[in-house]
Amino acid sequence: MGGLRVHGSPVSTATMRVLAVLHEKELEYDFVQVDMKSGEHKTDKFLALNPFGQVPALEDGDIKMFESRAITQYLAHTYADRGTQLLFKEPKKMADQSVWVEVEVHHFDKVASKLAWELCYKPMFGMKTDEATAEELKGELGKVLDVYEARLARTTFISGDAFGLADVHHAPVVHYLMSSPAKEVFVARPHVGKWVEYILSRPAWARVVADQKKDCARFKDNGMQRKLVLLFGQQDNEAAFE
Amino acid sequence: MGGLRVHGSPVSTATMRVLAVLHEKELEYDFVQVDMKSGEHKTDKFLALNPFGQVPALEDGDIKMFESRAITQYLAHTYADRGTQLLFKEPKKMADQSVWVEVEVHHFDKVASKLAWELCYKPMFGMKTDEATAEELKGELGKVLDVYEARLARTTFISGDAFGLADVHHAPVVHYLMSSPAKEVFVARPHVGKWVEYILSRPAWARVVADQKKDCARFKDNGMQRKLVLLFGQQDNEAAFE
Repeated sequence: MGGLRVHGSPVSTATMRVLAVLHEKELEYDFVQVDMKSGEHKTDKFLALNPFGQVPALEDGDIKMFESRAITQYLAHTYADRGTQLLFKEPKKMADQSVWVEVEVHHFDKVASKLAWELCYKPMFGMKTDEATAEELKGELGKVLDVYEARLARTTFISGDAFGLADVHHAPVVHYLMSSPAKEVFVARPHVGKWVEYILSRPAWARVVADQKKDCARFKDNGMQRKLVLLFGQQDNEAAFE
Repeated sequence: MGGLRVHGSPVSTATMRVLAVLHEKELEYDFVQVDMKSGEHKTDKFLALNPFGQVPALEDGDIKMFESRAITQYLAHTYADRGTQLLFKEPKKMADQSVWVEVEVHHFDKVASKLAWELCYKPMFGMKTDEATAEELKGELGKVLDVYEARLARTTFISGDAFGLADVHHAPVVHYLMSSPAKEVFVARPHVGKWVEYILSRPAWARVVADQKKDCARFKDNGMQRKLVLLFGQQDNEAAFE
């Protein structure tokens, strides 16, 4: 299996999206921490992996990739016979999955990642949440999730009756928001609430969260660990990070 | 072939993206004009096709889809044996295509569609361009196209040595911007200039542009036609639209 190497940041949602798929596919990989605080993602060495200077990047033997959702598509196709089957071959199911993979980008993430920035990342980086912006984004997210609620009243997962790539793509931002005051926007919609609970309970996702703690510890980024502990309320494990 | 039906607006870049792929794949289809001025895209009938109320939507027999890039992926996969081959099977080529399909969304379109709004759509709808915003966006687009220029110095097309889906996805917004003062941002970069010239010279793309004129004429949207004529300087054909 050797040869899979992810360059990323353990707190980046895009990095976590790729790691979630690697765990779903039961693929082993090396994790290379990119030190964004020192601007490592803007060095020539990293720009050779991603000319836009963003995490994550993937190396799979001589294949080099960037853009988290391109990487997950590649992994799901290339390692189709391993772990969880995340793609569907039957035309109608494939069509639905394509639609909801795009919906995650153009409707969900467009709003939810801005909200995660206000409610989760800003406090993590010692910045102040703009409450008015957060409220406005919560309203916008609610409208998107109204469509999700209607959809999930008819299908168990977002793209159909089986768990797939479109579901996994939501996990990182859902994970952050479910540990913030935006949780209410999800749980107020019963089908959405059940769906996000399932997504976050996947063993592969639990490994991503566990890896995040280990990676933070390995790279001695204790300030960040404490902030993550604070955010996710896992004080009981705090000692393990130091 | 019967059964392909596109619901859209002839001036919408997302609609044009789908039409470009239909022509590349040499697929026949019915075009159903959605009257956005009267809010048809927000009626229950249209919301049954796309719960987010945006064009385009596709019907292919009993398969119903929305999101332009989901539709193009579906068409390219499902009708792989027809017309232009837009997907690549070899893993490295597939990986590169996946990356650049995502780059179009997260880097190019993110900036370019806002610029097209300022420079092309606002004048079309009788609104005034915000020149400061347009200048700022031109600067941002330039930075994205610097990465494209470096890429296209090494490959003929954006995802590699063959024309593919990632190239087609750019066509509609490039088409509008190349008829605006933003043209200079493209042509100042020789490899980018050559690439956009090729994209817009595809026979499939010429059919999209010709269809746009016919569809506007068919639906008697003469004000819009005159504005398109003004925008693209095709005064010689104006009589044909009336």
